Amino acid sequence: MSPTAYPGPLFTDLYELTMAAAFHAEGRNPEATFSLFVRPHRETDAWGYLVAAGLEEVLDALEHFRFDADGLAYLKSLDLFGADFLDMLAGLRFSGMVHAMPEGTVCFPDEPLLEITAPLIEAQLLETYLINTIGLATLLTTKASRCVQAAAGRSLVDFALRRTQGLSAGMATAKAAYLAGFDATSNVLAGKAYGIPVAGTMAHSFVQAFSDETAAFQAYARCFPERTILLIDTYDSIAGARLALDLARQMRAAGQQLIGVRLDSGDMCAQSRAIRTIFDAAGFPHLQIFASSGFDEYKIAAVLAAGAAIDAFGVGTKMGVSSDRPFLDLVYKLVSLDGRPIRKLSSGKVTLAGAKQVFRRHDGQGHFAADFLACRDDAIARCEPLLGLVMTKGRRCDASPELSTIRTFLANQLQALPAEVKAIQAPGPFAVRISKRLAALQRMAV
Amino acid sequence: MSPTAYPGPLFTDLYELTMAAAFHAEGRNPEATFSLFVRPHRETDAWGYLVAAGLEEVLDALEHFRFDADGLAYLKSLDLFGADFLDMLAGLRFSGMVHAMPEGTVCFPDEPLLEITAPLIEAQLLETYLINTIGLATLLTTKASRCVQAAAGRSLVDFALRRTQGLSAGMATAKAAYLAGFDATSNVLAGKAYGIPVAGTMAHSFVQAFSDETAAFQAYARCFPERTILLIDTYDSIAGARLALDLARQMRAAGQQLIGVRLDSGDMCAQSRAIRTIFDAAGFPHLQIFASSGFDEYKIAAVLAAGAAIDAFGVGTKMGVSSDRPFLDLVYKLVSLDGRPIRKLSSGKVTLAGAKQVFRRHDGQGHFAADFLACRDDAIARCEPLLGLVMTKGRRCDASPELSTIRTFLANQLQALPAEVKAIQAPGPFAVRISKRLAALQRMAV
Repeated sequence: MSPTAYPGPLFTDLYELTMAAAFHAEGRNPEATFSLFVRPHRETDAWGYLVAAGLEEVLDALEHFRFDADGLAYLKSLDLFGADFLDMLAGLRFSGMVHAMPEGTVCFPDEPLLEITAPLIEAQLLETYLINTIGLATLLTTKASRCVQAAAGRSLVDFALRRTQGLSAGMATAKAAYLAGFDATSNVLAGKAYGIPVAGTMAHSFVQAFSDETAAFQAYARCFPERTILLIDTYDSIAGARLALDLARQMRAAGQQLIGVRLDSGDMCAQSRAIRTIFDAAGFPHLQIFASSGFDEYKIAAVLAAGAAIDAFGVGTKMGVSSDRPFLDLVYKLVSLDGRPIRKLSSGKVTLAGAKQVFRRHDGQGHFAADFLACRDDAIARCEPLLGLVMTKGRRCDASPELSTIRTFLANQLQALPAEVKAIQAPGPFAVRISKRLAALQRMAV
Repeated sequence: MSPTAYPGPLFTDLYELTMAAAFHAEGRNPEATFSLFVRPHRETDAWGYLVAAGLEEVLDALEHFRFDADGLAYLKSLDLFGADFLDMLAGLRFSGMVHAMPEGTVCFPDEPLLEITAPLIEAQLLETYLINTIGLATLLTTKASRCVQAAAGRSLVDFALRRTQGLSAGMATAKAAYLAGFDATSNVLAGKAYGIPVAGTMAHSFVQAFSDETAAFQAYARCFPERTILLIDTYDSIAGARLALDLARQMRAAGQQLIGVRLDSGDMCAQSRAIRTIFDAAGFPHLQIFASSGFDEYKIAAVLAAGAAIDAFGVGTKMGVSSDRPFLDLVYKLVSLDGRPIRKLSSGKVTLAGAKQVFRRHDGQGHFAADFLACRDDAIARCEPLLGLVMTKGRRCDASPELSTIRTFLANQLQALPAEVKAIQAPGPFAVRISKRLAALQRMAV
């Protein structure tokens, strides 16, 4: 079993099951539509856009939604559920429809990323799993996309695995980073699971395991003559760079080519510029300077603005845990039941009733101009509908796209997103308007 | 396969494998000791103590450390590794020693939570897995322990699963919360995997799925007459509380007992006090008031200080992602090689050489007084050594303790930890001193 495999419908909060039991006991199972969207927090949201992700994983899970004997035996052991309900669960499959934005769609708070339309019991049971899976993938893909924006064309490698919040998050980070435009990951399991390129350099412990830096550098280059990036800050970065240059000369004489060096501590800007000068003056302008240690989009933007001579970044912990925003306030709300629009009115948590569509207007010069939050059956002229029917009667409408296809789809949208919305610091707003019909529906909703 | 099962040694950064290949090619595999500890960041560390966790999972993984055929085929496909190295990996098992603090030990930055002593290649290959696993468990157990401190004896339930950073983090949160003293989790998979009590109430969508609140409340109580907590804020919390009271009266007349109500929005302090007054005046002092929505240790402490009448808290997102501190700067550093002490001197990242022990002094009145960071073979009078030998020649020395045993062990230590160190806001320092012999060793280290 793969570490990312869907573990089945026990991936849930208990209350989804107790509510389902009460619905079942009451014979109450009308068709319901639930909408999955990020609640806006305009005071604290520091990100200008989101990237919807996690859909492909969800569709695979929905096709495999079933309670196994082991899970049913556990539920029975809780002494909460009757035999009739457990029998119903044993035969339960997901039979509904899914409307969703394609994986990798640029989107905004309040816009539904996905809507489930299914018998109430099925739709309710999915809540916890959907929020968790779409929430994490959307969070991390957005975070990685911001790093790509900040790096402005420089190479990026995901180094996050050691400090992600567990293995699932490590796998999701590697995939998210690749979709967002990273070149590779250090995560070997993710390389294997997703076919993503893997990359890496060496650790300080490697350098320390030899009598001196030169011996360590030579040993690594002997083993990987085409793939060597030397870590030069174990003792002194500038001295380390000179030793790396000596090795680069020896390798050149032997017809080989050192790729470059890595800095992992200290003043990245000053060190990288000094080392760039040393390498260029010696006739080694192709030697790359790779930097790691505490990078995220903010630090990447800051060191580049300060003139750092860095060719590639290893981005780890702060991206992998999305440290400035470690969760999205993604919610899954009942918006329609048995044909009636449903609206939640709790203090500070009002939601919009009705199944929805998001329409995107383009400005005719290759940029996104505005979005319209609308009723699902609205038609808004000269706009592109973002949600499509992706599953019907519990079966996918289409096969999963390749990761490379999603990556290109996302990159193209980012070209079309106005520059101010992509800004790392204090991004400008993007207009998300409510259609007249959707506004009118709210006055009719319960 | 359980969702928490160890996926094997491909749970690693690529460089652990390339370094291992270079060590292997050079015939360089002396005995090494690596130390796993949290780097202090005194300016930003807002937590007064840490709780070491994750050891039991790690020991199980080390006993199952082996490259399977599938993993080896993937590594071969990378065109990075020679047949001789891959053959070596195929037969590789963990053959080393582990010294560690027991699961649930209260500890501090700079103190080793665990030390691995093994042939260099084995010890190096474990880095990524160990940091990830111990780091997450230690982070979450500490965070949950802080919530328990803030709740000052009130009941707590883990509600985090929907917004943890993936399933691994959701499982780790449920386990951490239980070890720290929570009563239950909403996470059904964790209930099954760890034997933790599961609990839950109902969602707004449940209330909305009926013609009115009373119909919803009655339907749930019919299904769960012994286990009902009513969510009362879907429309208006005070009106909802009065309807709950009506149902409590009907249930009492039928010989049943409503457990209580849940608030999930608005001013928790004012609402809970108003509702407490209504329930008490009506002769229902046993009806509990449960609160959820954005709680963590800071919000729990704030509402209790303001006089909220809350009996139990559902604690979710902010605990599950440890939102104020989403990672620990846990590192795994080479401290000894072939009998020589090793010290890292990189700018801002100096580490202490040598295999270590942590000694804890008690004050004779039931409180911890100070810790001493010492050489492993130091002896410090009237102090308790915290690290013990837990694995030798790749086999565990003892079976895993029960979760309930670890929970009691942790609760007892927290009784002994000075109150100022446990403070939620601006905790006082705990003295961690360096022994004379360990200080002297640094002057000899490379």
